Amino acid sequence: MSSERLIYLPLGGAGEIGMNAYVYGYGAPGKERLILVDLGVAFPDMDTTPGVDLIMPDISWLAERADQLEGIFITHAHEDHIGAVAHLYSRLNVPVYARAFTANIARRKMEEQGHDPDAVVTISPWPEVTKLGPFTIGAVPISHSIPESGGLVIDSPAGRVIHTGDFKLDANPIVGEAFDPDLWAEISKDGVQALVCDSTNVFSPHAGRSESDLGDNITKLISEASGMVAATTFASNVARVKTLAQAGERAGRSIVLLGRAMRRMIEASIETGVLSDFPKVVQPEEAADIPRENLMLITTGSQGERRAATAQLARGKYRGMELKEGDLFLFSSKTIPGNEKGVIWIINQFSEKGVDVVDDSSGLYHVSGHANRPDLEQMHDIVKPKILIPMHGEHRHLRQHARLGEDKGIASAIAVNGMMIDLTGDTPKVADYIDTGRTYLDGSVKIGAMDGIVRDRIRMALNGHVVVTAILDEEDEPLGEPWVDLKGLAETGQSNAALAEVMEEDLNQFLMRAGKKTLKDDDKLEQELKRIARQTAQSEIGKKPEVTVVVSRMR
Amino acid sequence: MSSERLIYLPLGGAGEIGMNAYVYGYGAPGKERLILVDLGVAFPDMDTTPGVDLIMPDISWLAERADQLEGIFITHAHEDHIGAVAHLYSRLNVPVYARAFTANIARRKMEEQGHDPDAVVTISPWPEVTKLGPFTIGAVPISHSIPESGGLVIDSPAGRVIHTGDFKLDANPIVGEAFDPDLWAEISKDGVQALVCDSTNVFSPHAGRSESDLGDNITKLISEASGMVAATTFASNVARVKTLAQAGERAGRSIVLLGRAMRRMIEASIETGVLSDFPKVVQPEEAADIPRENLMLITTGSQGERRAATAQLARGKYRGMELKEGDLFLFSSKTIPGNEKGVIWIINQFSEKGVDVVDDSSGLYHVSGHANRPDLEQMHDIVKPKILIPMHGEHRHLRQHARLGEDKGIASAIAVNGMMIDLTGDTPKVADYIDTGRTYLDGSVKIGAMDGIVRDRIRMALNGHVVVTAILDEEDEPLGEPWVDLKGLAETGQSNAALAEVMEEDLNQFLMRAGKKTLKDDDKLEQELKRIARQTAQSEIGKKPEVTVVVSRMR
Repeated sequence: MSSERLIYLPLGGAGEIGMNAYVYGYGAPGKERLILVDLGVAFPDMDTTPGVDLIMPDISWLAERADQLEGIFITHAHEDHIGAVAHLYSRLNVPVYARAFTANIARRKMEEQGHDPDAVVTISPWPEVTKLGPFTIGAVPISHSIPESGGLVIDSPAGRVIHTGDFKLDANPIVGEAFDPDLWAEISKDGVQALVCDSTNVFSPHAGRSESDLGDNITKLISEASGMVAATTFASNVARVKTLAQAGERAGRSIVLLGRAMRRMIEASIETGVLSDFPKVVQPEEAADIPRENLMLITTGSQGERRAATAQLARGKYRGMELKEGDLFLFSSKTIPGNEKGVIWIINQFSEKGVDVVDDSSGLYHVSGHANRPDLEQMHDIVKPKILIPMHGEHRHLRQHARLGEDKGIASAIAVNGMMIDLTGDTPKVADYIDTGRTYLDGSVKIGAMDGIVRDRIRMALNGHVVVTAILDEEDEPLGEPWVDLKGLAETGQSNAALAEVMEEDLNQFLMRAGKKTLKDDDKLEQELKRIARQTAQSEIGKKPEVTVVVSRMR
Repeated sequence: MSSERLIYLPLGGAGEIGMNAYVYGYGAPGKERLILVDLGVAFPDMDTTPGVDLIMPDISWLAERADQLEGIFITHAHEDHIGAVAHLYSRLNVPVYARAFTANIARRKMEEQGHDPDAVVTISPWPEVTKLGPFTIGAVPISHSIPESGGLVIDSPAGRVIHTGDFKLDANPIVGEAFDPDLWAEISKDGVQALVCDSTNVFSPHAGRSESDLGDNITKLISEASGMVAATTFASNVARVKTLAQAGERAGRSIVLLGRAMRRMIEASIETGVLSDFPKVVQPEEAADIPRENLMLITTGSQGERRAATAQLARGKYRGMELKEGDLFLFSSKTIPGNEKGVIWIINQFSEKGVDVVDDSSGLYHVSGHANRPDLEQMHDIVKPKILIPMHGEHRHLRQHARLGEDKGIASAIAVNGMMIDLTGDTPKVADYIDTGRTYLDGSVKIGAMDGIVRDRIRMALNGHVVVTAILDEEDEPLGEPWVDLKGLAETGQSNAALAEVMEEDLNQFLMRAGKKTLKDDDKLEQELKRIARQTAQSEIGKKPEVTVVVSRMR
């Protein structure tokens, strides 16, 4: 048995916050039986991934070993943990295990992508366990900013691994189970080989606050408002949505949920029994008859997403609702780095309408869903693992978290995507490096991050695009003059003539003088026409555009 | 004289932070003599302005009235106040007035753009004044995060206006003049008609801190470092660069300035006498002989700019310098919203190298250059203006600042770009709305924000670009089959065939069946080919690309 080993291999989520995908394996090297924990997405941006719909981990390594894979466990229903399951399911074809709420969300996603929703298996929480190959896996309730987050207890002949998933230490999370330190101590009492632990808030120096700290503040704010009130938060933060709705109800307001994701999350929560006592909601159409000072909207789009309800309200009417002078808009959310501009745009739009915007800068209206540094240390102290592997973080987070562990004398490793770690011994050892990367969902197809497709888009956006067309006759002589089409480029340059005309003139000059050898050679001709087009653009407008050359031959 | 009036017209900077340009005028309506205060730039981003080099205010209104314009005053040398002067100078052709340090920077910019640097006139600070038409203008020293910021006192027959420029209340700014409340009280004692006031930090609830608060913290941090130290800040924050350099010197380190802007700002400061006692610097080439624990680098690129020294160091070597395990990197700066991703990328790169990164989150290593809310209130109390016009802010800042004024009983107005305000009476009145906008410097040419050029770039980045080429013979019959070139699009779609081939097939089918009328009509043909290309892309890859159709006719 000494040749068997326990491995950990992040394919996503270690070295970034997003697209979580963590592989565990047990067995002889190369023959390990595998499980996958989470299969999430990351979100594109204009800087690096224009036009892309979703970013997913490249699971080629795992897909090639699909026959070794026993199952997929989803810790919770946030998109960065669940979002890629239905998109990549067909390459893995194994059951997907999750607790009821998460499974509900997963099934809908499977259906949307044309897969059998029954591939998703609902598991009961710890002490129930699922046996898969050499593994016995249990989902222990842990508090987070979504219902039914489960920390996984993964037992194998090499001992117990605790994979926290995303978590915070919340004794009163409003919706879902409280963090129970005694339960975690009980689970850890016989020794934990490795703790694989959320690192998101390792730079937050103060202990985290409870979801229940917000109710009074939010109630006070809303009860003092005189006009219409609207508030946004993450749709999946069902506890927060409940707190907001109850505050509205107490202030005598009817609740309107705006945005598909918001309604869907509440629906799933009610269907799976995780949410009760949710105030009665009214439809936007019914709201027309209610005085605006008796309304409270709860909206999607806390990150400034252009198509979500909040941005629509910032632009004007949305489903008949409109915010006006004297109304109040509350961001009960923090802005994720990278989304600042979109959120600020919305705040300024509301400002122009005379709407008062309250954000989370006071700390009164939002708490994080992740464990802060002191909370992480408390988790380390409860679990007392032999090995600590920080996950769910950029490199800086992993490094800081590993340091926290080392400072406590816990053998810790910075394991980034593609680094296979052997967890069998007293210290973590790098067993292998796997090629990993990103797969983009682009429209309805998947493309590789390194395919050059997105690179071309970025280049066209930065440099513009010139299309040069030239026709050559049967003798390889130019038939008429070449012409150009410009897209994304200034029409007039330094010489005050149309750039297209100057370029056509330069290209024509070249073609007139070009030797037979050049004119016969497609590659050479294309290369030269491209060079001239770029050169003319550079001297006329100071930019070197992307150039596509289309040479047609009358053969 | 009762028909004469004093007007204020922001062309940039009011409704955004950036590209400041404020017009003042005095005279009969439509015949006012004008001055322009500041002419700055804003910086492009990939989301809204890909490929653009600089964003400048559209000064068409002013250029049409260049004969009414007496001069341009630059309050200080930050790019958002000075950056467009040389680019737009030829449309205005009037003297540019500034204090010595600012004038030094302005002259270099004028030279770079081929203008006479003597168009820049150095003015002495208050009580010296410049008389221009109906105006008498003085530049009163005011503290900010750059040397020699000047608040302008603008006198006209309609009374005194104070245009603060960017400022903070700093009794000990390290470099440059301290804020002198007595001087400002003296200036204001006979009554101030209007205070036009910086709004940047109106949401910061606590009184601002002094530049001098940082020296001890920075010195302590650097003296405790064991490896190489590098620190970044805005190059123009000469006081900070001095503080950093002195801390390094005290710790026995030789100072290396990395980045052109950094060296240039220090040079300008020394040439104009605003900086003294700056530690001796060594060149990167000399640094090779100095032990790394005796070096301190001060670098450009605190906002994560890709080509600046900080990002270069994050990538690897820069001018022979390299950061390694155990070195320290200090961000003595805050990250401007929108720049988070670039800065975080750098921090993670350093983390991978084992470099410890310290940022401003502790508040120990950076203070803002702008007046916070209590400081703004102090300024209101000192100046006691009849009218308050908030400037230098997004709409939300202007609105909050106007509210502060109203709460004190000062007649205040939210005046955004293009709103001409009559400042003559007891309350501000909107006198006119002027068309304003943005001009982009794009390569070497200027393009309008509404020209559609940048819109096309964004569309190509989001949707990809298809070029369809079709050739028709003398009888308007297709000559061969049409073909397509794809750029920024997946090569293979749902049918598992090459997208280009499927598209060519569909286009060919269309051409074969098209009637004579369609084939003869360029517009119709282009429209149909475009429609089919988009339709095929939609069904094959789920995207609707931009399409350029090139129809060649053998006539």
